Amino acid sequence: MTFSYSLQATDDAARLGVFNTPHGEVHLPAFAPVGTQATVKTLSPEEVRELGAEMVLANTYHLYLRPGAERVNRFGGLHDFMHWDGPILTDSGGFQVFSLSAMRKVDDDGVTFRSHIDGSSHRFTPEMVMEVQAQLGADIIMCFDECPDPLDRLYNEQALARTHAWAERCANAQRRSSEQALFGIVQGGIFPDLRVQSAEFLAGLDLPGYAIGGLAVGETKQQMYSALDAVMPAMPADRPRYLMGVGAPDDIVEAVFRGVDLFDSVLPTRIARHGAILTRKGRINLRNARFADEEVPLEAGCACYACRHFTSAYVHHLLRANEIFGLRLTTLHNLRFLQRLMADLRAHIASATLAEFREQFLADYLGEDENV
Amino acid sequence: MTFSYSLQATDDAARLGVFNTPHGEVHLPAFAPVGTQATVKTLSPEEVRELGAEMVLANTYHLYLRPGAERVNRFGGLHDFMHWDGPILTDSGGFQVFSLSAMRKVDDDGVTFRSHIDGSSHRFTPEMVMEVQAQLGADIIMCFDECPDPLDRLYNEQALARTHAWAERCANAQRRSSEQALFGIVQGGIFPDLRVQSAEFLAGLDLPGYAIGGLAVGETKQQMYSALDAVMPAMPADRPRYLMGVGAPDDIVEAVFRGVDLFDSVLPTRIARHGAILTRKGRINLRNARFADEEVPLEAGCACYACRHFTSAYVHHLLRANEIFGLRLTTLHNLRFLQRLMADLRAHIASATLAEFREQFLADYLGEDENV
Repeated sequence: MTFSYSLQATDDAARLGVFNTPHGEVHLPAFAPVGTQATVKTLSPEEVRELGAEMVLANTYHLYLRPGAERVNRFGGLHDFMHWDGPILTDSGGFQVFSLSAMRKVDDDGVTFRSHIDGSSHRFTPEMVMEVQAQLGADIIMCFDECPDPLDRLYNEQALARTHAWAERCANAQRRSSEQALFGIVQGGIFPDLRVQSAEFLAGLDLPGYAIGGLAVGETKQQMYSALDAVMPAMPADRPRYLMGVGAPDDIVEAVFRGVDLFDSVLPTRIARHGAILTRKGRINLRNARFADEEVPLEAGCACYACRHFTSAYVHHLLRANEIFGLRLTTLHNLRFLQRLMADLRAHIASATLAEFREQFLADYLGEDENV
Repeated sequence: MTFSYSLQATDDAARLGVFNTPHGEVHLPAFAPVGTQATVKTLSPEEVRELGAEMVLANTYHLYLRPGAERVNRFGGLHDFMHWDGPILTDSGGFQVFSLSAMRKVDDDGVTFRSHIDGSSHRFTPEMVMEVQAQLGADIIMCFDECPDPLDRLYNEQALARTHAWAERCANAQRRSSEQALFGIVQGGIFPDLRVQSAEFLAGLDLPGYAIGGLAVGETKQQMYSALDAVMPAMPADRPRYLMGVGAPDDIVEAVFRGVDLFDSVLPTRIARHGAILTRKGRINLRNARFADEEVPLEAGCACYACRHFTSAYVHHLLRANEIFGLRLTTLHNLRFLQRLMADLRAHIASATLAEFREQFLADYLGEDENV
């Protein structure tokens, strides 16, 4: 089997594991930086690798529209095109179709939408999305799903039926299962019964991995954690569990604590381009005037390239002066922060000390006031 | 002597040499990438170094306004602040005061101007500019000069008197001559007699190097080459000769042929951010649709990072998708192209074959039609 998940240790619900892909191993729990348009914004592939990232994500919706999946395929697939020889995961485009595109129209067969780039009309069906992802050639591909407002019970019930039917069609349409692992996406909003129903239905498809979609999109953190509490026991234990679009450090810690193995999010790279950095003491905006004379690194003890060579004052200057190198430095720091966090989480699962680490990390990160 | 120029070989007017600075040697003829705001746009210092660049330029006007020269000084000067341990050259701010700032008012003592950033009022005098450059701490600093329209005879005559008086005041005001080499700036527009007069006057100040300013700012290429023809014989032979703000490959070749040793220009980095690359066959705009399916590197035979790892189609995609990594790749290519050109020029001076190289390079670069 080209793809295999091996569970190496547990610490209560948390899991230490490895997922094998044709392009190498992913040590879990892992965070995959997002390379929406076949590039992790501002960074070279070598820099992403040096940060410790083993896998990157790319977005099917964006790449389908530009440069086109057929074109990527002619260039040997995403690995060759973007010069990344490690594992790649592509999402299904479902989330983007429902959040980015204009004038979408959903029916049971698929979704018709307009490009956010040029307004041109397109249609995604489960079969079409499987074909597009086959052309892109990622190691992990995702079922096409409908992404409703997580708080809307009625819409979630209706969307779930469609998401499940589409998952079956995706599984049937997949044509490169030895090269690409198809993951199902559990939906159901914040509703425990729908989440469990979705996890159980998709488990029946015997897919090599499962994602939890539709969270971190408007519900409270407590609602997200409650949804995870409900669904995690229903997720197949012998498959990797991927929480889509979640990248806030506290959310990652809470989700790993509940048994999640894999994350992706634009959060660390997006906030970096707005001048915000992640630290153990919480999120900090380096554009703030108080950093103009700070001779210390972005974060004490951090070994990222930015922290090794530059002062906070210099990075502050670059950000204020709209210099691209400043965005590279904050991006490097933030991704390194998350890779370091994932390594810490793996180490603490291995030593069965995750509960203590979680408590200390959340106290530091969220601030003492919020933990009394 | 901390600073020394050694002439190693000549090929007619062209010169192979080395300029020694407290932060290392600069092999001449050389091109110094521009790091206006204490960063060569889009690149890390290590990347600039790996391209083969030995010296970078930073802009006094910009750094005085933001983050402030006193602040840079508190952080140990530009070398520490921007993490570049090689030679640095700062210009005098003269050109920027006359081209970028709003509402400038010139008198014999100095220039009052408004910041292009926030409209605040400032004043530069020769003494003040020497103080600012001392705070910035570059290895090579420049006299404050007035930069007139190169085609305006009367203005050039008036400005020249002022530029010369200011050069004397700069030389008198300089307080760190063992750490910083002060270069004079020959002005005089396109007028041979004024250029010679300026070169001769400044030679009398016995400065460690001389620049030619006020070219490549509106005159034709032929007018620039004629001005060089006139002034170069009057430039001290035992000092480095720096043609400010010139970075077009054909101009560099023509100027080296006439005896110029040093160049700086935003051209390679600025056009890179507009998607244009420099090649032996001329300038090419990678955003052009014809590159969407080009599986070849940006330029055949180029060993830059971009050309080693990526197709033109991928870089085209990044540029169209407004991805910062695309700007890094075109910037790397363009700066590498110029560093390669300077190495070729040095090799051909050493072997006394510059005339043939010049002819072939210009035929290739400008196109055969323009050389019949």
